[in-house]
Amino acid sequence: MEQLEQQIRFLLELDKQKEITRQTYLADASRKEGDAEHAWHLAVMAFLLADYANEKIDVLKTVKMVLLHDVVEIDAGDTYAYDMEGNQTKQLREEQAADRIYGMLPQEQKQEYRALWEEFEKGETPEAKFANTLDKVQPVLLNHASGGKSWREHQIQKSQILKRNENTHEGSEALWEYALNLIEENTKKGNIGE
Amino acid sequence: MEQLEQQIRFLLELDKQKEITRQTYLADASRKEGDAEHAWHLAVMAFLLADYANEKIDVLKTVKMVLLHDVVEIDAGDTYAYDMEGNQTKQLREEQAADRIYGMLPQEQKQEYRALWEEFEKGETPEAKFANTLDKVQPVLLNHASGGKSWREHQIQKSQILKRNENTHEGSEALWEYALNLIEENTKKGNIGE
Repeated sequence: MEQLEQQIRFLLELDKQKEITRQTYLADASRKEGDAEHAWHLAVMAFLLADYANEKIDVLKTVKMVLLHDVVEIDAGDTYAYDMEGNQTKQLREEQAADRIYGMLPQEQKQEYRALWEEFEKGETPEAKFANTLDKVQPVLLNHASGGKSWREHQIQKSQILKRNENTHEGSEALWEYALNLIEENTKKGNIGE
Repeated sequence: MEQLEQQIRFLLELDKQKEITRQTYLADASRKEGDAEHAWHLAVMAFLLADYANEKIDVLKTVKMVLLHDVVEIDAGDTYAYDMEGNQTKQLREEQAADRIYGMLPQEQKQEYRALWEEFEKGETPEAKFANTLDKVQPVLLNHASGGKSWREHQIQKSQILKRNENTHEGSEALWEYALNLIEENTKKGNIGE
């Protein structure tokens, strides 16, 4: 029962992710998206769009990876993609968070899920590449659907988006092509700066 | 590309689930939980607690099932567990919703995910039994963590909870036992009526 107690405490700790807000708006632009909602959306994409991965992926592994990829933000907060200063300290803050939060789990699961998070961060395996592609493409879909609200608010330039997405094609050429079309369309509309 | 267009439209339709509110409060009682957050929490539980399932389960199938189990609420709304009137019309409303929403997908996925939802609703397979157990146990964890706020607000009686949970043990004796202890504890505290 001690093992189950540890797992339940971890699950209740994760509840805090529901209250971490991202910079992306929901499709209807009514409010910003939360971390848990974002992870849920990526997990659905992971199996719904698995056929578009460049390499064959283990779908369950990818789903676990995206469901837990932002757990560290419970301590480290959401670092906005285009926050230069925040991104300099992001790695250290997130590693300390991973120590604490995954450390709540029984030994075997602690190792499995912490390793999965590190794999996601490195982005080298087929699953990690695809998970990273989903993590980049999903906000483009929402940003486009919401009329580019978050891009406009932060006065994002096309060059910034392309730089941040230089590896996005590695997980799925098809999904990156789809996202790139939306980026071009929103640049034409003026939602993204030229 | 027509297939990808259909899948993206479905994913953007699902975005509406983020704005459907349940009756359960978050663990810190700050606000009520949304459908997408709830589905995310269940999906994490599905793999984290898979060893407690009474029968061997296909974890990926269970994860897909819980991630999409409330999709119908986009049209049918969340029917509170103890809303007698709402529960009389729930089935018809949800079937019409399933027709429309899963109908947005390419043929093969439409059949797979609609069948998965029906399997969840029937609760007869090992995966459906475990998914239903998670769906019942998770709100007990949150209700307990939040000091029984939702139980107190709706003046829920222990007998109502036990009746609603008469099959919950079928997915996992261990998780039901854990939840039952919390129900007893909250009955003693007066958060649940005797």
